[in-house]
Amino acid sequence: MLRLYDNLSSGNGYKCRLLLHKLGIAYERIELDIDRAETRTPEFLARNPNGRIPTLQLEDGSHLPESNAILWYLAEGTPYLPDDREGRARVLQWMFFEQYSHEPNVATVRFWITHHVEMTEERKLGVVTKRRLGYDALGVMEGHLAERRFFVGDRFSIADIALYAYTHVAEEGEFDLSGYPAVRAWMERVAAEGPHIPITQG
Amino acid sequence: MLRLYDNLSSGNGYKCRLLLHKLGIAYERIELDIDRAETRTPEFLARNPNGRIPTLQLEDGSHLPESNAILWYLAEGTPYLPDDREGRARVLQWMFFEQYSHEPNVATVRFWITHHVEMTEERKLGVVTKRRLGYDALGVMEGHLAERRFFVGDRFSIADIALYAYTHVAEEGEFDLSGYPAVRAWMERVAAEGPHIPITQG
Repeated sequence: MLRLYDNLSSGNGYKCRLLLHKLGIAYERIELDIDRAETRTPEFLARNPNGRIPTLQLEDGSHLPESNAILWYLAEGTPYLPDDREGRARVLQWMFFEQYSHEPNVATVRFWITHHVEMTEERKLGVVTKRRLGYDALGVMEGHLAERRFFVGDRFSIADIALYAYTHVAEEGEFDLSGYPAVRAWMERVAAEGPHIPITQG
Repeated sequence: MLRLYDNLSSGNGYKCRLLLHKLGIAYERIELDIDRAETRTPEFLARNPNGRIPTLQLEDGSHLPESNAILWYLAEGTPYLPDDREGRARVLQWMFFEQYSHEPNVATVRFWITHHVEMTEERKLGVVTKRRLGYDALGVMEGHLAERRFFVGDRFSIADIALYAYTHVAEEGEFDLSGYPAVRAWMERVAAEGPHIPITQG
């Protein structure tokens, strides 16, 4: 049985939980307390030397980290991943956009706020930049979704799951989505794509 | 003909140039001056709303941004991408590691130094964190390569290209690689995988 090393507050973990639920795949979920550095113990570093959840333990006992690589692994051969070359590359385009331009800004600010992280001088300066870059990323999404239902090929895919995970909780990071109507309409479409679960469901 | 919007100093651009060269694919290269914000003009934002190079213009005139999505697009069906499910997921694992844990640290510090970016208070504080996280990423690579020739399946792949791009110029960002012998030996193997070109070759 697959085993997911996870944390319920993590949008990256939620991506995996949501797709596993959609695919009806049974798995064991191991909750790690990231505030207590349970991802940095020698035992967990042996599973993922980069010390991060989510990490998926495969049937053969090996471990696969990186939320979007896990999404790809699970989605291969399912309707959640296009089977044409350009469609697959575009799914990756948006997943790399998510990890580089969206997550380090939108998710990190949410993490600092909701986990009550100490606001050092570096973070106080950084949050201003991250808020600007986060809104930039939301603006790129808004433009793309203005005339599209989903991110790639007018079909729900793992690109939507990857970008939904932290966008739908952006307000917990005090991002105001009122100026992003296409993003809000897309989030409603994503949540209506059953079977769906909320981020809080393990 | 494919057209690559590029900048010669960019490791992300180099990834694409190197793979195009290995595959013997002819393409037109358009050099943009990132110091003069040529990636933020209305004309370029119409090609990539995220305002970044590399961006690949495909045969149909559409544009594909994100260096690692471009690598995937070009490598599909070639020896540079494994054809088994787990191998492909592991290539993505390392490419997402590269964009999240390596590039924002190793590449960004190099960019600030080599492009003589103004060292604001935020960057002065940030460089200390980025140097620590950059060495952490190099440490993860060192551990993985200690008993492996390449990152995935003992075969040269686009995962190696993605990680080589900024690792082989890390010293330009004043990262000292003397304590990373497995990484240095791997870089020699990558450079010996012909056909090869240096980052400076357009």
